[in-house]
Amino acid sequence: MSEAPSMPMIPLPRPQSDAAAAITRGVRRMLAERGVRGLVEFSLANGRRADILALADDGEVTIVEVKSSIIDFKTDQKWPEYLDYCDRFFFAVDADFPVDLIPAECGLIIADAFGAEIIRPAPLAKLAAARRKTLTLKVAHIAMARLHRVEDPGLRVGE
Amino acid sequence: MSEAPSMPMIPLPRPQSDAAAAITRGVRRMLAERGVRGLVEFSLANGRRADILALADDGEVTIVEVKSSIIDFKTDQKWPEYLDYCDRFFFAVDADFPVDLIPAECGLIIADAFGAEIIRPAPLAKLAAARRKTLTLKVAHIAMARLHRVEDPGLRVGE
Repeated sequence: MSEAPSMPMIPLPRPQSDAAAAITRGVRRMLAERGVRGLVEFSLANGRRADILALADDGEVTIVEVKSSIIDFKTDQKWPEYLDYCDRFFFAVDADFPVDLIPAECGLIIADAFGAEIIRPAPLAKLAAARRKTLTLKVAHIAMARLHRVEDPGLRVGE
Repeated sequence: MSEAPSMPMIPLPRPQSDAAAAITRGVRRMLAERGVRGLVEFSLANGRRADILALADDGEVTIVEVKSSIIDFKTDQKWPEYLDYCDRFFFAVDADFPVDLIPAECGLIIADAFGAEIIRPAPLAKLAAARRKTLTLKVAHIAMARLHRVEDPGLRVGE
């Protein structure tokens, strides 16, 4: 019963590509240093899936969309649909990305696999209390479900 | 970047003994089948540490104290201090435990490493809204922090 965690039977969700995974890792490290914790691949009530949904100590909700290439950015212009599910919204890209493409009204993070920097803060658009409550509970649930799968690799219940 | 999760640099918290870990695993599986997710070794604001703190879909908070032996039960009589941090409180023991020792006002779960059964439901004593909100946010944060350590074993930030 005391062995180290091993690969869960139902794999954890992961970023779509290695390039996206590198940016995601750097962003999560930077956020964690600020006491903000991020969950990857978080499904919202509108059917969209956030690359990173992060929660601060005070409950502030941040969504970060990771764009690993120009094509990745241009083929997915659905970011306005995320705004209703967070207090702040950022794009995160690597240092080679032409940042002029990123809409000026969004926050901007430049990241590599080891860390990240906030280049432009995101404007604050506060969630309604009821949606914040629902989101926080769902975040807690999904994080616990994924952790449970790691801690009990034989578990057959998904998230 | 796409390898399977490996052992995090800062180990995840675990139950104190193999006997407690077996009961804990069975309880968490049973809860997960009901859509309730449990986090182990959760520190409460009063300094006590809950063996399992669990959250239902609707936000109901359950604390389960795991007792792996009579001695374990008799040397720790601090369970009333948990009542202020949950809606329902249970003891979980294995099939050999003399259940007459468990206070009648607490819920009772019998577990082994593979599952568990609720023998006696726990009375509902609803948390105040402010405490529920604080607890839910903290649960989300701790679960995300632990999951982050698994997903990024090189992470140097603890919970």
